[in-house]
Amino acid sequence: MIVVMKHGATEAMIQKMVERVESLGLKAHVIVGTERTVIAAVGDDRDQGKESLETCEEVEQVVPILAPYKIASRETKPEPSIVRVRDLAMGGGNIGIIAGPCSVESEEQILLSAQQVKAAGATALRGGAFKPRTSPYAFQGLKELGLQYLAAARDATGLAIVTEVMTPQHVEMVAKYADVLQIGARNMQNYHLLQAVGEIRKPVLLKRGPSATMEEFLLAAEYILDQGNQEVILCERGVRTFETHTRFTLPLASVPYLHERTHLPVIIDPSHGTGIASLVPSMSAAAVAAGADGLIIEVHPDPKKALSDGKQSLTPEAFAATMATCRRVADALGYVLS
Amino acid sequence: MIVVMKHGATEAMIQKMVERVESLGLKAHVIVGTERTVIAAVGDDRDQGKESLETCEEVEQVVPILAPYKIASRETKPEPSIVRVRDLAMGGGNIGIIAGPCSVESEEQILLSAQQVKAAGATALRGGAFKPRTSPYAFQGLKELGLQYLAAARDATGLAIVTEVMTPQHVEMVAKYADVLQIGARNMQNYHLLQAVGEIRKPVLLKRGPSATMEEFLLAAEYILDQGNQEVILCERGVRTFETHTRFTLPLASVPYLHERTHLPVIIDPSHGTGIASLVPSMSAAAVAAGADGLIIEVHPDPKKALSDGKQSLTPEAFAATMATCRRVADALGYVLS
Amino acid sequence: MIVVMKHGATEAMIQKMVERVESLGLKAHVIVGTERTVIAAVGDDRDQGKESLETCEEVEQVVPILAPYKIASRETKPEPSIVRVRDLAMGGGNIGIIAGPCSVESEEQILLSAQQVKAAGATALRGGAFKPRTSPYAFQGLKELGLQYLAAARDATGLAIVTEVMTPQHVEMVAKYADVLQIGARNMQNYHLLQAVGEIRKPVLLKRGPSATMEEFLLAAEYILDQGNQEVILCERGVRTFETHTRFTLPLASVPYLHERTHLPVIIDPSHGTGIASLVPSMSAAAVAAGADGLIIEVHPDPKKALSDGKQSLTPEAFAATMATCRRVADALGYVLS
Amino acid sequence: MIVVMKHGATEAMIQKMVERVESLGLKAHVIVGTERTVIAAVGDDRDQGKESLETCEEVEQVVPILAPYKIASRETKPEPSIVRVRDLAMGGGNIGIIAGPCSVESEEQILLSAQQVKAAGATALRGGAFKPRTSPYAFQGLKELGLQYLAAARDATGLAIVTEVMTPQHVEMVAKYADVLQIGARNMQNYHLLQAVGEIRKPVLLKRGPSATMEEFLLAAEYILDQGNQEVILCERGVRTFETHTRFTLPLASVPYLHERTHLPVIIDPSHGTGIASLVPSMSAAAVAAGADGLIIEVHPDPKKALSDGKQSLTPEAFAATMATCRRVADALGYVLS
Repeated sequence: MIVVMKHGATEAMIQKMVERVESLGLKAHVIVGTERTVIAAVGDDRDQGKESLETCEEVEQVVPILAPYKIASRETKPEPSIVRVRDLAMGGGNIGIIAGPCSVESEEQILLSAQQVKAAGATALRGGAFKPRTSPYAFQGLKELGLQYLAAARDATGLAIVTEVMTPQHVEMVAKYADVLQIGARNMQNYHLLQAVGEIRKPVLLKRGPSATMEEFLLAAEYILDQGNQEVILCERGVRTFETHTRFTLPLASVPYLHERTHLPVIIDPSHGTGIASLVPSMSAAAVAAGADGLIIEVHPDPKKALSDGKQSLTPEAFAATMATCRRVADALGYVLS
Repeated sequence: MIVVMKHGATEAMIQKMVERVESLGLKAHVIVGTERTVIAAVGDDRDQGKESLETCEEVEQVVPILAPYKIASRETKPEPSIVRVRDLAMGGGNIGIIAGPCSVESEEQILLSAQQVKAAGATALRGGAFKPRTSPYAFQGLKELGLQYLAAARDATGLAIVTEVMTPQHVEMVAKYADVLQIGARNMQNYHLLQAVGEIRKPVLLKRGPSATMEEFLLAAEYILDQGNQEVILCERGVRTFETHTRFTLPLASVPYLHERTHLPVIIDPSHGTGIASLVPSMSAAAVAAGADGLIIEVHPDPKKALSDGKQSLTPEAFAATMATCRRVADALGYVLS
Repeated sequence: MIVVMKHGATEAMIQKMVERVESLGLKAHVIVGTERTVIAAVGDDRDQGKESLETCEEVEQVVPILAPYKIASRETKPEPSIVRVRDLAMGGGNIGIIAGPCSVESEEQILLSAQQVKAAGATALRGGAFKPRTSPYAFQGLKELGLQYLAAARDATGLAIVTEVMTPQHVEMVAKYADVLQIGARNMQNYHLLQAVGEIRKPVLLKRGPSATMEEFLLAAEYILDQGNQEVILCERGVRTFETHTRFTLPLASVPYLHERTHLPVIIDPSHGTGIASLVPSMSAAAVAAGADGLIIEVHPDPKKALSDGKQSLTPEAFAATMATCRRVADALGYVLS
Repeated sequence: MIVVMKHGATEAMIQKMVERVESLGLKAHVIVGTERTVIAAVGDDRDQGKESLETCEEVEQVVPILAPYKIASRETKPEPSIVRVRDLAMGGGNIGIIAGPCSVESEEQILLSAQQVKAAGATALRGGAFKPRTSPYAFQGLKELGLQYLAAARDATGLAIVTEVMTPQHVEMVAKYADVLQIGARNMQNYHLLQAVGEIRKPVLLKRGPSATMEEFLLAAEYILDQGNQEVILCERGVRTFETHTRFTLPLASVPYLHERTHLPVIIDPSHGTGIASLVPSMSAAAVAAGADGLIIEVHPDPKKALSDGKQSLTPEAFAATMATCRRVADALGYVLS
């Protein structure tokens, strides 16, 4: 941690700051510059030193040196983590494909979806039983019935089930049916929920919040890891920017950036990331080329009739074509798209 | 709702779309333009028509005409709503001042804070007992003990208590001690929590999410209102933008904009909105001049020793000076700053 | 400048970096931390040290300590600069009001505008003769003829003239007619233009670019100051964010933030900052309460007939009411609104 | 154009609006809805109708139906435009690679760069002779001497030369030496410059401004096209968002999005788009997979010694490896990477 003192800080102020740094259990080095004095505070300062020091009036800024997450860090575990559930594998050169409709709408719809995405090569089925909706007047999901339909689709196809859990009370119920629990973007900083899924022993797919920094994203993962659940999959699904021609702005550079900092698998959601079905195929191929460990794609047997997100859902045919393209890119680059 | 067909849409496509519009219970008017055909769909389309129509390939865009919220709308209730709890009044020309520390740290700290902010003219006390923290390693609050200290501070000073609730299971407990339940920015779209506070009959202070649009903000309020709780206070606390010199970017234009669209009171949080104590006094005055119905300000007996948010907390002296300035502005403009 | 070495940097790498720091004429202090080594580089490093050092592979980040601008800095000149032209005064407690139409449309229109805004209390007239327009098919301004009309309006009313210059070749011509040369937001980083207006000796009103950081904004001012022109007025006119309900997001916190860092006057453009006429009055009052040194407001004799920006233009009546409100706030806070 | 009247607009207001619409040469269709009346204005309204109508108080919003650009539109010219200069080809399945240093620093440096990027497979050389720099104290380029060195490098290698022009006065000079004139991101809305390069007959590489919408980007291209220069290459180089871990946020979805709307070639700048050399290789491969018509990549013989942008410059070895990866992706997808 580097404490930059304000222009004109007196000897006494500097001395007082040295004492405060040392009271945090850190060692202080004073460096007198031409226009500013800085104090380097040496030691593990991840916890709360920064906040406490920067409240002092004579301090201009405090610059942290260490990343605030530990368990998620590549420095803690240099080799990539691989998450495996049934035939789905993500990380370490394995690309897993999760596909299916936004919402579970009926038993027929989810079973048909499962068969279609499996035929095209997906190894996991997505589908929302509990749906977070911006409007209270929109379809909110089939709830436990939807989970039962998902389980039936798994029984019929062998696909792993990925579905969202929205509140701590539902974690146990959702975990009973699902193979992977999804935390939606709106809940990335719902800390009680993060802790609740941290206590179970099933993989968690954590979506980045639409305005979360990379550090906040990794700290949200850290909440789960810190409870003992080591199987966290990070999902970039686009951020909110001034761009409105797409639903969100999808920063694929998150993939190599996160790979440098964490061992956790990083996957891409091109459906929410663009919001427009016609942009999904090329963004899927681009994600694979960028090194993503997986994709989660919305596919609906008949997007025009979808109860939610139809605009960004691929038809089964478009999904099959997208898979073929992704496979060509994966093969060219030596990845295993299972 | 206006459905804009793609360039080159055929007669048959247009006819099919007319049928789909009518199947939603809306009336269709076809307008053939020089380069595009548009179909005006007349009727109350707030629910799910838009989403369903824009999935059709031959549609370029669907433009909603009606705002998707109803109960929150000024069209539903033209006169401003006033929320009153103890001596706190917000809305309709009344400016309420909520002040206090970020976290409840001890009985002495919160009692001293309460006395100090009351002396300066605040009518409500803020203080977090349950703290949402970005890092799992940071101080998470005193929990129920903190709520008890807050209640004790109310008994001693008469101030109304405003405190955050983070998860549905805690709503009952927090409501037992608090006068106003706060929903934090990270939870603005935690729909189970919104519904839970919608079921109680105490005012709810709803903070805008850092990347929420105005429409999403009003729809979050609608979740609460739709459960029967009519006392919702909207709080603008800054949005996340490319600006990093302040913690968030504080758009005061939200105040007049929201006043045009909703009858709910709109207050400003200049502490989170800037993240820098030295900017809080002028932003408080500006908020009053902009027509805000209240302020929520972080004040700590000794910000340097605060366990959280010390950097953006005012000292009791700075808060008293800020109050004096705000009162001068309120007086000049004819508002009642109680 | 603080150079943070990567985790695992060897002794040899650190030694090499020390040599590079010293080759830039800076003194190097090595601080060995528990997980990282940092090197403090002492000396005036404003020029190009940072860029050169951060290209080294073994460097994690380089943190600058000094702000990169000098002449604009409050450290260089602690007292506020006041810009005075005719009856317009901005800075040091003086609030100057610049008002008028977006574009000069005719001699009658600009003369009438001048009389109307003067009657309401403005001391300067704005009006575009050269108009930067997003579309090549939109009205581009009356050019030199427009400048002549502005000069005629000045002769008739005594108001100072503020008008935009778009390209270096026009600086001389615009300076012949105008009292203050405006650099538009789209040209904030048009460096040839900044240098050209730096060479004249008339005040320059520099608008912040819609995605410029505070540092970039002050460095753009530095381009002008560095050519010898000391009369620069900074104008916050809103930034581009995810918010689309207003034309831009207007961060009034720029006013106190800039006041802490620079001696230059800081004014607000609530017209572009919101894009909606009905929001301008309260944002004007808020800007005054925030401590702004001036306002630049679009006013049109008949906004419905304006050739540009009619949507955000006040009527003469609304402007007069806005001025009255602003004056009440200024009086309450001890500012001189001339 | 769709004019949405405010709730409660009277018959008289509607009638007046119909007259205004018709006075613009458009045909008006009135549709009376359950809560709002809308007026559809039929005809080519690209020019200034919208602005004029939305200033009327009784109007809630005006929704344009037609895109405001014409010559750039895919509707005007459905087949893709291909820009060819020497061995560089971009568009219609051809991927052109432009590579070289940020700045021309010396004759040796640029010649060596040219030889290195050509050896790795680039067909054009980039290098700045006129450098827009955020700080007036940073290196500003070798100016005409730099152009001469670039021309010498072309003579020696046959590579096409791509270099930036910053101001209208320099267009003739730069065009004398360059094969492709680049308009930098900061100048995307420098309209005098756009018109000046529109008057010459050499291809123009137009970079997207960091906060420009797609519509503004295409309208900037339209400024050039409208002057008669039909060879415009669009370059996505990243936008400014809340993300600070990368220099800009690089939205690769711009590629398929623009391809749907315009016939102009679309290329990607992964160097500015990320600002970090280690992220450039995967973003280059992703851009190719996304369908980009070309790449412009910063490569320096020794990035550590670069006078600008060293942090984001590839070494010649890293560039050669990146080219090999891109070629594998291009081959897999059937593109010609020349």
